[in-house]
Amino acid sequence: MLIVMHHHATDAQIDEVIKAVEAMGLKAEPIPGSLRTAIGVLGNQGYVDDSTIRTLSGVRETIHVSKPYKMVSRDFHPESTVVNVGGVRFGDSEKPVMIAGPCSIETEEQMMAAAEQVKSGGAQMLRGGAFKPRTGPYSFQGLGIEGLKYLQRAGKAYGLPVVTEVMRIGQLEAVCEHADMVQIGARNMQNFDLLKEVGKTRHPVLLKRGMSATIEEFLAAAEYILAEGNDQVVLCERGIRTFEKTTRNTLDLSVVPLIKEMSHLPIIVDPSHATGKRNLVTSMGKAALVVGAHGLMVEVHPDPARALCDGAQSLDGIGFAELMKDINGLFEYLGY
Amino acid sequence: MLIVMHHHATDAQIDEVIKAVEAMGLKAEPIPGSLRTAIGVLGNQGYVDDSTIRTLSGVRETIHVSKPYKMVSRDFHPESTVVNVGGVRFGDSEKPVMIAGPCSIETEEQMMAAAEQVKSGGAQMLRGGAFKPRTGPYSFQGLGIEGLKYLQRAGKAYGLPVVTEVMRIGQLEAVCEHADMVQIGARNMQNFDLLKEVGKTRHPVLLKRGMSATIEEFLAAAEYILAEGNDQVVLCERGIRTFEKTTRNTLDLSVVPLIKEMSHLPIIVDPSHATGKRNLVTSMGKAALVVGAHGLMVEVHPDPARALCDGAQSLDGIGFAELMKDINGLFEYLGY
Amino acid sequence: MLIVMHHHATDAQIDEVIKAVEAMGLKAEPIPGSLRTAIGVLGNQGYVDDSTIRTLSGVRETIHVSKPYKMVSRDFHPESTVVNVGGVRFGDSEKPVMIAGPCSIETEEQMMAAAEQVKSGGAQMLRGGAFKPRTGPYSFQGLGIEGLKYLQRAGKAYGLPVVTEVMRIGQLEAVCEHADMVQIGARNMQNFDLLKEVGKTRHPVLLKRGMSATIEEFLAAAEYILAEGNDQVVLCERGIRTFEKTTRNTLDLSVVPLIKEMSHLPIIVDPSHATGKRNLVTSMGKAALVVGAHGLMVEVHPDPARALCDGAQSLDGIGFAELMKDINGLFEYLGY
Amino acid sequence: MLIVMHHHATDAQIDEVIKAVEAMGLKAEPIPGSLRTAIGVLGNQGYVDDSTIRTLSGVRETIHVSKPYKMVSRDFHPESTVVNVGGVRFGDSEKPVMIAGPCSIETEEQMMAAAEQVKSGGAQMLRGGAFKPRTGPYSFQGLGIEGLKYLQRAGKAYGLPVVTEVMRIGQLEAVCEHADMVQIGARNMQNFDLLKEVGKTRHPVLLKRGMSATIEEFLAAAEYILAEGNDQVVLCERGIRTFEKTTRNTLDLSVVPLIKEMSHLPIIVDPSHATGKRNLVTSMGKAALVVGAHGLMVEVHPDPARALCDGAQSLDGIGFAELMKDINGLFEYLGY
Repeated sequence: MLIVMHHHATDAQIDEVIKAVEAMGLKAEPIPGSLRTAIGVLGNQGYVDDSTIRTLSGVRETIHVSKPYKMVSRDFHPESTVVNVGGVRFGDSEKPVMIAGPCSIETEEQMMAAAEQVKSGGAQMLRGGAFKPRTGPYSFQGLGIEGLKYLQRAGKAYGLPVVTEVMRIGQLEAVCEHADMVQIGARNMQNFDLLKEVGKTRHPVLLKRGMSATIEEFLAAAEYILAEGNDQVVLCERGIRTFEKTTRNTLDLSVVPLIKEMSHLPIIVDPSHATGKRNLVTSMGKAALVVGAHGLMVEVHPDPARALCDGAQSLDGIGFAELMKDINGLFEYLGY
Repeated sequence: MLIVMHHHATDAQIDEVIKAVEAMGLKAEPIPGSLRTAIGVLGNQGYVDDSTIRTLSGVRETIHVSKPYKMVSRDFHPESTVVNVGGVRFGDSEKPVMIAGPCSIETEEQMMAAAEQVKSGGAQMLRGGAFKPRTGPYSFQGLGIEGLKYLQRAGKAYGLPVVTEVMRIGQLEAVCEHADMVQIGARNMQNFDLLKEVGKTRHPVLLKRGMSATIEEFLAAAEYILAEGNDQVVLCERGIRTFEKTTRNTLDLSVVPLIKEMSHLPIIVDPSHATGKRNLVTSMGKAALVVGAHGLMVEVHPDPARALCDGAQSLDGIGFAELMKDINGLFEYLGY
Repeated sequence: MLIVMHHHATDAQIDEVIKAVEAMGLKAEPIPGSLRTAIGVLGNQGYVDDSTIRTLSGVRETIHVSKPYKMVSRDFHPESTVVNVGGVRFGDSEKPVMIAGPCSIETEEQMMAAAEQVKSGGAQMLRGGAFKPRTGPYSFQGLGIEGLKYLQRAGKAYGLPVVTEVMRIGQLEAVCEHADMVQIGARNMQNFDLLKEVGKTRHPVLLKRGMSATIEEFLAAAEYILAEGNDQVVLCERGIRTFEKTTRNTLDLSVVPLIKEMSHLPIIVDPSHATGKRNLVTSMGKAALVVGAHGLMVEVHPDPARALCDGAQSLDGIGFAELMKDINGLFEYLGY
Repeated sequence: MLIVMHHHATDAQIDEVIKAVEAMGLKAEPIPGSLRTAIGVLGNQGYVDDSTIRTLSGVRETIHVSKPYKMVSRDFHPESTVVNVGGVRFGDSEKPVMIAGPCSIETEEQMMAAAEQVKSGGAQMLRGGAFKPRTGPYSFQGLGIEGLKYLQRAGKAYGLPVVTEVMRIGQLEAVCEHADMVQIGARNMQNFDLLKEVGKTRHPVLLKRGMSATIEEFLAAAEYILAEGNDQVVLCERGIRTFEKTTRNTLDLSVVPLIKEMSHLPIIVDPSHATGKRNLVTSMGKAALVVGAHGLMVEVHPDPARALCDGAQSLDGIGFAELMKDINGLFEYLGY
């Protein structure tokens, strides 16, 4: 941490800050500049809580150098992590993984039809939501446990590991029983108690970026899971909230190469939620693979026009087959 | 809902849309314009899920007129709601309520000292966190149940109803037992399962705005609580996330008059979290009261320089007494 | 400036950075930490361009301590500046100034009627736009020079100094001839050539914050004017662009106390453009004065329902008289 | 336009609105819903200024259906425009164009060296700035006219048409004389007077998106140019301002397919300014081409470590040759 003093800070104020740093068991190194003095803080093993320092007189600002995470960082864990979901592998050395399926699980027939399309299109994993986070209470909230069973059966029938969202700790056991991978949605990225509980399982986790989360907060959320002993975490970029409203969110693709540099965890992209528009899914999905994403998650529904949720961003079977044809061409170019 | 067709949409496409609307049990009213046709959707009793419509060919966009909430809306409930927390009343006809206390509960002595300062300053309620949502797992996470006891004792000793945050459903019973009001934090504003459970209690709720929540999402989150039968909800603006980083968040004071127009629920403001800077708390707090806030929540700590959390935005006893002197002058001007 | 090296940076990389700093004529002071080394840069008299440093291998990030402005900073100019516009004074020791008038100058009659309302309401300055920055080319673009004459006559008739926007260098001479204060609008806050030319005049300037400008950029824009020798600059907060769309912009009131701390220049607030809603103008305007604004600029039109621009946020004469009654009550409370 | 009335609006209020619409020479079509009445506005040939309507009592909101642009819209001009810059062609049917060169023109030697690298790498156009928009007045402001000459000579020597930024109307003649294409930078996207003047020339224009401009504002800015008779406009996405600060801006790639759908004008992408990081340029540039960009603009400098501006995001000759090798591989995959 660097403590920047005001231009007119007195020597007594500087001494006061140095004493406060030392009282925290750390070393203070003053750096007198021509316009102002700065004080380096040394000896900390991680993020320093600066609230007690920022309150001292003469202090203009404090600047953090350490980050609120460590185990997820490539600095301290240079080898890339591979996450294994029932034999499907996400990681630097692996071919990108395609996950597809409907936003919501609606009926057993719908899930079977979706799984058939997902499989025949060539995807490796099946998605579907049994517990749905909806803006308002009057929208369809998901089928619950019954839905988990349909998802599991469809996955088994077509040999596709399945991923589904968990919204509360009380659902976690059932979700782990029926699904191969547990998803934490964007709205729960900072539901820290849920992160801790998921960290105590040894189930693979798909952690979505919060809708206005910084990269630092995103990695710190993953740190909650790793800190409990579970390193099987795949990160997922799904768009951030900006002033631009033509798309549902603004897909921030530069996080893919950035996170691959900063962390050893795999990262995938969800172009369906990011854009909210079916006709953008293929092009944005391909762009995500070109910047190095370890996989894609796309919404596929046997009959989008009758979907109970997010139909406008879902592909039907034909649309998904076309997307996969395109993606396969891209894989060839990328050398997979 | 209004469905806007493309400039070059054909009559057949328009007919297709009309049929789809009617298939949903609603009425479609075409409005031929000079540049394009729009189709009004009539007969819906609330928000219409438009995913099935947006997918039809010839449709340019759909525009929602209804909102994803109804019970929180002043349109349907014109009288202002008064929320009663152990005798302390929030509402249009009431003097604004002052809530104060530390970010985190640290020791029994600290809570007693804080309660003494809060009481002697003239506040009506005591705050303090036992379960703390922290960005990273290595920051202080709160004392848990033990902390709730300290809070309750301090509140009783000084005759101050208490409010504290709940982070997971499993904590709700203990929080309701020890606290007079349950807080849902910004990071959990869209933790819908927690909202539903809180809605099933009859405990007063303090619901904070999510860090990038729109007003519509904020009100829809409150709707989850009211829909379960609990109308004792106080809303709380605490700043939103923007590109500006000099303050912790950007305090959006215009939501206060807007929400008072749109909803019958009381709304208070937290200038401490919004700004993250102690020296801005008094001026922004006074501004909040001038625009009509039903109360303020401010952070007060007996020794901010040694606070385990958010010391930089906390006032000490003397600072709080000064703030209250200022606020009392303002109350006189405002006619309380 | 502080240069933060990667955890695994080598001694040779550190040496390379030190040499590069010294090649810039500055001093480098390494600060070895337990996790990584940082290098303090000393001896600079202002902002350091770090592009050449960030490119060196082993460098994780550079952190600026100096700012891209100096003359506008209170650090280097502690006494508050008073800006004098034809006898109307903006500054710390002065009563806040009320500026009012229509968005656009439409006819001589309209300006006379507006000036009468502005004067009788008790404002000190008259505003009105002759050159209008409009999103699209088909909206009313202003009356130009003819409008300037109406504005000047109306100001003279009622003894009100006038302020009007300049959009291009070629208009500057005419604007200075007809108006007492030159406004740079939000869209031109970083029109640096215009800032320089305005800086070469000795005319008072009203500089509006860009719609997504940081405080640092806002002050650096003012620095362009002061650097040319003109220190008669009043800053104006008018709302920033965020994801929230219920208001036209999000009024960021915390910049008022922050800028008063950081700079010696006066700062006023425009609640009309910030909110875009007439019924929010009075409450947000009062809040601005409570946090210490040196003035307000509000839109007043004799007949808002027939205004050629921004009618929805304009007050009529009666509305303005009511606002001024409210404001005068507030001035009494504030001790003016 | 659609006018949405309040739930409790009276018949008299509805009549008042209808009369106001008719007074504007338009037709009003009431649509009575089960919860509220909406009123369709018909007969307008473009964007309707709604300020006079929003002020009427009983009106909840107005919703625009028409847009503030028309000539740039594909709705009214279905065929894709090809922009020809000295024989280099931007457009749907063309191979994407590579523009490269330094941020600033520094010396004649530097421009010649850069042009050599740009040419031998295989780019078609040369860029370089003679007039530089810099946040603070103490940064290098560009060489001016002298720089334009170096740029022109370097372009001629290597057979590369050149593009350079114009910052004020007074520079336009000189820029048109020395450069093949005129750039309007992000900070001037809403410098409407400059747009109009550029529109009066017949010079090709490169219009960059403002740092917080919506797509609608971006297209409306282009409309200013087309409305003056110049349709040789290439749009350029260069990142938008969000809360995320790890990258300089957030590159919004979904605008590429969206704008190709909404407009007939070509659109290119600048990955250098968008990310601010040299090591992200290649991957984000490739992603831009995959989503359909008509070209890229990247920063290349013979010696980035000594660049006077933006060195951290500039590639050197070797880096650019590597990027072009990668891009050429991608072009093969894309079928060029």
